[in-house]
Amino acid sequence: MENILLNCKGLSAELSFVDNYIDEFLRTNQETGAVAQVLSSARLSRGKMIRPLLLLIAARFGSRYQERRQRLCKLGALIEIVHMTSLIHDDIIDDSPLRRGRSTVQQQYGKDMAVFAGDFMISRVLRLLSQERLNREGLGIAETIEEMCHGELGQMSCRWDTKTTIDAYLRNIHGKTVALFVKAMQLGAAAAGANERIINSLAAIGEHIGYMFQMRDDLLDFTSVADQVGKPVHRDFADGIYTLPVLYAFAQPSYSPRLKEIAAINNDAVRYEEFLQEMGKLVHQSGGFEFCQRQIDNHAALAMRQISTLPVQEARQGLSRIVEQLLDYGEEAHLPITGSL
Amino acid sequence: MENILLNCKGLSAELSFVDNYIDEFLRTNQETGAVAQVLSSARLSRGKMIRPLLLLIAARFGSRYQERRQRLCKLGALIEIVHMTSLIHDDIIDDSPLRRGRSTVQQQYGKDMAVFAGDFMISRVLRLLSQERLNREGLGIAETIEEMCHGELGQMSCRWDTKTTIDAYLRNIHGKTVALFVKAMQLGAAAAGANERIINSLAAIGEHIGYMFQMRDDLLDFTSVADQVGKPVHRDFADGIYTLPVLYAFAQPSYSPRLKEIAAINNDAVRYEEFLQEMGKLVHQSGGFEFCQRQIDNHAALAMRQISTLPVQEARQGLSRIVEQLLDYGEEAHLPITGSL
Repeated sequence: MENILLNCKGLSAELSFVDNYIDEFLRTNQETGAVAQVLSSARLSRGKMIRPLLLLIAARFGSRYQERRQRLCKLGALIEIVHMTSLIHDDIIDDSPLRRGRSTVQQQYGKDMAVFAGDFMISRVLRLLSQERLNREGLGIAETIEEMCHGELGQMSCRWDTKTTIDAYLRNIHGKTVALFVKAMQLGAAAAGANERIINSLAAIGEHIGYMFQMRDDLLDFTSVADQVGKPVHRDFADGIYTLPVLYAFAQPSYSPRLKEIAAINNDAVRYEEFLQEMGKLVHQSGGFEFCQRQIDNHAALAMRQISTLPVQEARQGLSRIVEQLLDYGEEAHLPITGSL
Repeated sequence: MENILLNCKGLSAELSFVDNYIDEFLRTNQETGAVAQVLSSARLSRGKMIRPLLLLIAARFGSRYQERRQRLCKLGALIEIVHMTSLIHDDIIDDSPLRRGRSTVQQQYGKDMAVFAGDFMISRVLRLLSQERLNREGLGIAETIEEMCHGELGQMSCRWDTKTTIDAYLRNIHGKTVALFVKAMQLGAAAAGANERIINSLAAIGEHIGYMFQMRDDLLDFTSVADQVGKPVHRDFADGIYTLPVLYAFAQPSYSPRLKEIAAINNDAVRYEEFLQEMGKLVHQSGGFEFCQRQIDNHAALAMRQISTLPVQEARQGLSRIVEQLLDYGEEAHLPITGSL
């Protein structure tokens, strides 16, 4: 992160503005009630703000970037709030006890609070878009929220289904994760007045980065330590969500029968730690990790090629650093791509 | 309903347009998937469209009503979609198996689907407001959704609390129900170019009608038959939601101890039919029904007084008919306000 901030002048200050806007947009008069508690808890669970970061870097490719900085920071805040909302509503389904090491809104306050805290946050997005008359942006955000819902619902209908195809998986993560990365890039570039060609190029880069981000997340679910990434290990499989490494392993005749057996044993009610451990080993042995990493590397290469065609050296370097960091597991986990589990 | 439609020329045709717009706005390309199923189920559970009806009647007090009919029908559809969304998300909390006699989205497809089906619907509201550049309307709708969330969250925090005050109850139903009635009136009148004084007067009428509507709903929960109103009887109390008749009874020394005992016995996990029956009788004997009906009558009188100050005879009569129908229990249930349970 510091790397990227050093590369792009002013980015650090802009992210602080985004941060302040998020606080401002989610503030409520009713500071005493349950709502306020839920919101401040949601504000605390804010992530690394990679989506606003992408939006602000994309904006540097537009000629009106300087004069539009305030609007850009507001858009960055909106994008992050959309993301935060999706996390809160997502956790209702996943029954996640932990999100980035903190207990989730639904864990602390129940599903009821989580549903309406999320709705409240969407209402603030609508309010701001209306107040600022950001109609084009509103349309884009609406379409993205819709895609996100399709992705989540698609993932739900694939849940516990060991016959899920890789195509279905890719469609689902496109909605769930990739679409908002693409939109962050488009919104930033368009609001700063970048031309059509550049906007499309940045959207394509956002798409590759989005896929990298999600697939990396899938891999980290096999190896990360609970208090580092904030999620216990093997959660996806335990929740019946079969990610890319698992889907690859399901397709290998020597691993498929046992893995599907474990999938059948495992269910919503009980978590069989020893079977999950075995599942992790089998997926590793099947080459599932390598397969997933190859897809990530592929997206990285395509992103880098696109990035090299862009003008504005400083911002270009910012994007390259993001791609590089998504390839580096050093800080977050020791991923045994080569080596034993 | 026919009464009102006869009173206001063109209203019936306008409501058909609203109906068609709802279908159009909630349509998705992905007609095969789970999303489509959820949406068509949500479309089927549409109610009597009292909110669009109020919006369209309010519009008749504006001078530009004729030329704005298309926009008004679209706004009516938006208001109804906001209402439908709140029902879907509300049912997640209530765990309601039935809504208007049909099984609810969450009952049919699970909580997961219900959360995202609702979010999808809000995204369609945002999309339409952005497409049509309805910024002032968007701001109003955003504020109303926020109020609705506060109401729902407020109700949640009063749940199972036998010390809930009538003030807290009134605040909660204002958010949950009344706010959207007020907004329907304001949006209709403002979009048709009514003047400030008339808009405020219509908002006040909407407020009274909203309170009447919710308090009547509270009463019907004591007496309605499942397949008539679409909800089993005594649901509110069984869910730990103490409505006006109950709160009144809680305050009567000769009924309070036993009622609070029943409230303590009753809980989330089990429904004790015989205790609920006893509760209903006690609330009736305490005068809780009469108290609630007196509040309804009071709001009716205040609404009627406001209505009488309005111009446009035809539309004024439409509003009066709505107030009258909310006082008439003939079709829906035999409410034993005087008589035995």
